Amino acid sequence: MSITDPSPVRRRRGRGARERILKAATELFTAQGINATGMDQLTAAAEVSKRTLYQHFGGKDELVHACLREMEDGLLPPRVPPEMTPEEARDRLLAVLSWPPPDPSAPLRGCPFLNAAVEVPDPEHPVHRLAASFKTEFARRLAGLARRAGARDPELLGEQFALLYDGAVARSTALNAPGSGAVARSIATSLLDAALVPDARSAG
Amino acid sequence: MSITDPSPVRRRRGRGARERILKAATELFTAQGINATGMDQLTAAAEVSKRTLYQHFGGKDELVHACLREMEDGLLPPRVPPEMTPEEARDRLLAVLSWPPPDPSAPLRGCPFLNAAVEVPDPEHPVHRLAASFKTEFARRLAGLARRAGARDPELLGEQFALLYDGAVARSTALNAPGSGAVARSIATSLLDAALVPDARSAG
Repeated sequence: MSITDPSPVRRRRGRGARERILKAATELFTAQGINATGMDQLTAAAEVSKRTLYQHFGGKDELVHACLREMEDGLLPPRVPPEMTPEEARDRLLAVLSWPPPDPSAPLRGCPFLNAAVEVPDPEHPVHRLAASFKTEFARRLAGLARRAGARDPELLGEQFALLYDGAVARSTALNAPGSGAVARSIATSLLDAALVPDARSAG
Repeated sequence: MSITDPSPVRRRRGRGARERILKAATELFTAQGINATGMDQLTAAAEVSKRTLYQHFGGKDELVHACLREMEDGLLPPRVPPEMTPEEARDRLLAVLSWPPPDPSAPLRGCPFLNAAVEVPDPEHPVHRLAASFKTEFARRLAGLARRAGARDPELLGEQFALLYDGAVARSTALNAPGSGAVARSIATSLLDAALVPDARSAG
């Protein structure tokens, strides 16, 4: 309330402030949700003043957006490097559906982009748009792996795998049980087997 | 603020208050989310005093719970009546994945139970528990239809269809586009065809 002292030590304002804010915000948004997390709690957890927080992020929307941005690369399936073999691509496709629950003692919280889309319903909001573009890119990356694996219709298989992933994480979140991963993998394996057979099962 | 007049007309307190509160709350929770909807907005939309709201529902959690309860029957797949034929059961199974977007001009909001599980992360919270029990019952009803349809492993097919449903609605919500429904149906049809074939494709 009365911080006029410019010392960087007092409230740990220095160079690490941005990282601390992002880390604290990601943890709180994951544990509690976006809308249930207030700015006071965020500043306390990050050990920064409100002023510092607003210096780094114009507001909560911008902070939510930045947290999601930070997570993107870690959650997207890999791009296909030139040397990847069809067998490796197939394994990577199935591995997407083998996500481990991060901490067995914490509630399962699924995909932060799905969750953000639920909490920020306006499709034109930057946070919702980021969630949508993530989900589009997610399917596109899967289609890339499917193409390298030799699937007949890689775009369709990419969409199907993306849907299985979202179904598994959404259902695991609701049930707070990771069992849906195995259900998704059982479907994925049979879809992949069918997509890799050159010309079978064309009749319904 | 100063309502001492017990007249039932003044703020429309009468017999319809409970229904108005539920209707307004369901609309606001659907449009904005649970945590983004405040009690002031709820009472204004329902045209009731806060006192009336708390008389009917002990608090917001109870109101959220009651709204979800009201929606359960309309969103669960049907129980299987004795006279249902296998063909009818098959059609009902696939119909579960043919949900129409309620209003093409409004953002897609998916399943209110999935959304509630995201917004109320604590697995022990009554709202989250209701979401989990809904999702369990959802798969159970689908398994009932699958059994009547003649599926080999109806429990597995019920889980698979439930996952496809959740994947389609979650993904549609994030992308704000209903196209995932067709992707889910394409998977569902092939799963159902395979499950209804007496003894084929046992080798992987």
